Amino acid sequence: MTRRLYALCGEDRARQFSPHVWKTVMALAHKGLAHETVPLAFTEIPAVEDGATATVPLLRDGERLVRDSFDIAVYLDEAYPDRPSLFGGEGGRATARFVEAWSQSALHMAVTRIAILDIHDLLTPADRAYFRKSREARLGATLEEIAAAGAAEIADFARKLRPLRNMLRTQPFVGGDGPLFADYIVFGALQWLRTTSKARVLDPDDPVAAWFERCLDLHGGAGRSVPPA
Amino acid sequence: MTRRLYALCGEDRARQFSPHVWKTVMALAHKGLAHETVPLAFTEIPAVEDGATATVPLLRDGERLVRDSFDIAVYLDEAYPDRPSLFGGEGGRATARFVEAWSQSALHMAVTRIAILDIHDLLTPADRAYFRKSREARLGATLEEIAAAGAAEIADFARKLRPLRNMLRTQPFVGGDGPLFADYIVFGALQWLRTTSKARVLDPDDPVAAWFERCLDLHGGAGRSVPPA
Repeated sequence: MTRRLYALCGEDRARQFSPHVWKTVMALAHKGLAHETVPLAFTEIPAVEDGATATVPLLRDGERLVRDSFDIAVYLDEAYPDRPSLFGGEGGRATARFVEAWSQSALHMAVTRIAILDIHDLLTPADRAYFRKSREARLGATLEEIAAAGAAEIADFARKLRPLRNMLRTQPFVGGDGPLFADYIVFGALQWLRTTSKARVLDPDDPVAAWFERCLDLHGGAGRSVPPA
Repeated sequence: MTRRLYALCGEDRARQFSPHVWKTVMALAHKGLAHETVPLAFTEIPAVEDGATATVPLLRDGERLVRDSFDIAVYLDEAYPDRPSLFGGEGGRATARFVEAWSQSALHMAVTRIAILDIHDLLTPADRAYFRKSREARLGATLEEIAAAGAAEIADFARKLRPLRNMLRTQPFVGGDGPLFADYIVFGALQWLRTTSKARVLDPDDPVAAWFERCLDLHGGAGRSVPPA
């Protein structure tokens, strides 16, 4: 049986950096499911699996093809119910949608502003042109204008993580005593930053930094397979 | 069997306004558990149940006495497992802690700034003195200084709810198709504002406003038992 994860990479094909793909890498590791990784540049994505997707992650699991990191996690829990759950029940699955919405609205634009030029620079030449054009159109500004807000975002980043920091007073993971997909959602955002930017947004003694290190240690250190930028 | 909820009230003893008590009111309604309410002024709380608590909610359930809204919800799910679950499993329970941390860090200080003088004014005379002294000491400013930031908080309040608003694109409640305790956590913050302040922080066509109305409609309109301020 073929299990294949289509992932995003830079010119260095080992440099996986997509926050959404990292969620799936962690989800597969959590379930203990081996897979091969197919690293793709942005501009290579439309060519795979008969044009099945414009974005990654895309998971080929035997006959099944599943896209979107959340949908893949739901699929994995349903297809492999005897393996450790990614949601810990229906309530956990629903509430993970709130964590996803929080992470995307609180953190993703900040990471974009901090890292956008670093991301541009690590891409293949073809991807650089695509990335500049698509992001400038989407965000209505040049990459350099977007990056101009990066310094302020670095200074403000720790504040945005207050909900996670306060929660860590009561438990070591969003999932409670151990991690769930909700942890991997937030991990993905911070791993995106770690793998693309040299910016250091957290004090080493921040409980959020300790949580992130715990996540990097999970599943045989799966998150450390790509070194920091 | 006696089931008694100690709640916070104003000079009008029917005006329950504590966000944390509202979480418990909704939790009891969700479980379909009848109870009597004991309305208390702030300064009456230390006298009940042999000084069991400095804060409400406090739940007397037969032999058991449980304080803290989250602990009460956990207790209710464990004590009444055959009634509708408040968490939808272990994962939902853990992840609700994140929603709690988000609600408290994103919303509670804003509600405090918007409503602090309204809250003061609805209290009993003895409570007014206690409230001014304790809040001014805790926050390091006079009530009037705290309230001075209220107008800016009203203008900014809808923005803070973006995670919930974005989540509502995928499902009608934090709990998914129906509400869970995670919904009641956020509901408590908005109900606190509704029952104390005339400030209108949401456009009527905001999906968050529609979600709040759905919550007010739940369980026979339990949330509407106190009219808006």
